[in-house]
Amino acid sequence: MSLLVVGSVAFDSIQTPHGQVEDVLGGSATFFSLAASWFTPVRIIAVVGEDFGEEHFKIFRQRPIDAHGIERVPGRTFRWKGEYVDDMNQAHTLETQLNVFENFVPKVPAPYLDTEFLFLGNIDPALQLKVRQAFPKLRASALDTMNYWIQGMPAELAKVLATVDILIINESEARMLSGQQNLKKAAEKIQCMGPRTLVIKRGEHGAILFSQNTIFALPGFLLEEVHDPTGAGDTFAGGFMGYLAQTGDLSESNLRRAVVYGSVMGSFAVEEFGLQRLLRLAPGDIEARYQELKALTQFDV
Amino acid sequence: MSLLVVGSVAFDSIQTPHGQVEDVLGGSATFFSLAASWFTPVRIIAVVGEDFGEEHFKIFRQRPIDAHGIERVPGRTFRWKGEYVDDMNQAHTLETQLNVFENFVPKVPAPYLDTEFLFLGNIDPALQLKVRQAFPKLRASALDTMNYWIQGMPAELAKVLATVDILIINESEARMLSGQQNLKKAAEKIQCMGPRTLVIKRGEHGAILFSQNTIFALPGFLLEEVHDPTGAGDTFAGGFMGYLAQTGDLSESNLRRAVVYGSVMGSFAVEEFGLQRLLRLAPGDIEARYQELKALTQFDV
Repeated sequence: MSLLVVGSVAFDSIQTPHGQVEDVLGGSATFFSLAASWFTPVRIIAVVGEDFGEEHFKIFRQRPIDAHGIERVPGRTFRWKGEYVDDMNQAHTLETQLNVFENFVPKVPAPYLDTEFLFLGNIDPALQLKVRQAFPKLRASALDTMNYWIQGMPAELAKVLATVDILIINESEARMLSGQQNLKKAAEKIQCMGPRTLVIKRGEHGAILFSQNTIFALPGFLLEEVHDPTGAGDTFAGGFMGYLAQTGDLSESNLRRAVVYGSVMGSFAVEEFGLQRLLRLAPGDIEARYQELKALTQFDV
Repeated sequence: MSLLVVGSVAFDSIQTPHGQVEDVLGGSATFFSLAASWFTPVRIIAVVGEDFGEEHFKIFRQRPIDAHGIERVPGRTFRWKGEYVDDMNQAHTLETQLNVFENFVPKVPAPYLDTEFLFLGNIDPALQLKVRQAFPKLRASALDTMNYWIQGMPAELAKVLATVDILIINESEARMLSGQQNLKKAAEKIQCMGPRTLVIKRGEHGAILFSQNTIFALPGFLLEEVHDPTGAGDTFAGGFMGYLAQTGDLSESNLRRAVVYGSVMGSFAVEEFGLQRLLRLAPGDIEARYQELKALTQFDV
């Protein structure tokens, strides 16, 4: 089924204990769509500048990603510079240049209007709401956000939250949004704000799914090397939503499988810098790691 | 099968955001034996002072715990005072009075010599080795230790590590002991030091079991309230070793089940202050929570 993402496309410069890269393709919509494209065709709405060339569009087009919704406007593409020091779970932002992203107004191309699964990447909640309202008949909508919007635009965030089915955020964001330190209590409160399904990402500690009747907890996949955590959360969301759109199944057991596929994709993303690992995946890699996660977590009664 | 623990018996004074208690019965051997006693009879070797009265011995005797190995000597019992502020995973020690524990020399009563499962609680590694050597024919031996011994007595610790089958420590201790930040690499290194089986405790994030051929990761049980984390690690070890001794089965699948029982017991311990919750458990509670953990972690292929 059709899957659409709205979010950022950026050039990232990243330093980690394992090396550094300059101006590599990144952004929430990029990591999301790359990951989801291994499950289903993806449509993307984003904005880039004049420094975004054919070689960059090609990265999307070599996968089943419809990039017609990436608008190219005068100016430079969004740039982010960050580093990871000891704690690979914590990015330190060194520089943010919003550039063309500052005046981003998402436009929905007419052929996208039959979209069934929508992911609202981490952007201004007022823009998320505008996009959400363009799609009155979705099978499922999901949203990501961050501390900046939770603290800075709580009223706008509440409005869009009330319209979505699924919220995908990290542990500290869930605590901040709910004002509850305890994750079970935080989840209950968030589920009353709109999204009946809540996915809490915990970095190397895995993820928790709060659905209508049950809770599912998945530990993180154990890697020998984490080279670059940038984009892991959006990659998780891409695997999660990609699998839901592929199967069209929103049952609780399928939501659990989607969390596992999200973790699988996130675990690949961090193995190499930027998109490198995601771009050279084979479908067999994904199934193999799904089975590894199954073997990692299985126990008998 | 017979299970013996050597460790501390203490009086704890604890402050958490949920309240405080003064001089309640605690210590590694206490939490361990209480938890294990729900699975199998337990023998205990420890030392207490003259302030340790019949009312305290009774706490052990109301469970299938053989307390003949608790030696009562002149002086005061070991006392620990600590608090938990925001992060319930991190105890801040306010005061430690070793008292009679300072000159503790474990003595093995003759009737204990047929012990089959041994747990060496977190004490001086030279004493752990001494106890270990009193039991040439064990089914399985396990050891706990901490940063104080890892940094302060590495040679003595290496000696006793070389003699045990199982090491049960927390995440930061595993990193310190191995000098490896990555847990997979840390585990490989530790497994070369002696223990073929390594259990890494991760507090609210669960536990990982590294056995000879496979890795098993279990997320933490989600609680609405954590009132007092004191003793959670020893309680985990008690559930783990208690289940192994009860079943007499050291297969990889049974080690996994033992990790789940350890987590179950640890999750009870933190629900109330001190031993309160462990003392009023019913066997049905344990099985019910085991099934809850199963439901929390299950997903299909």
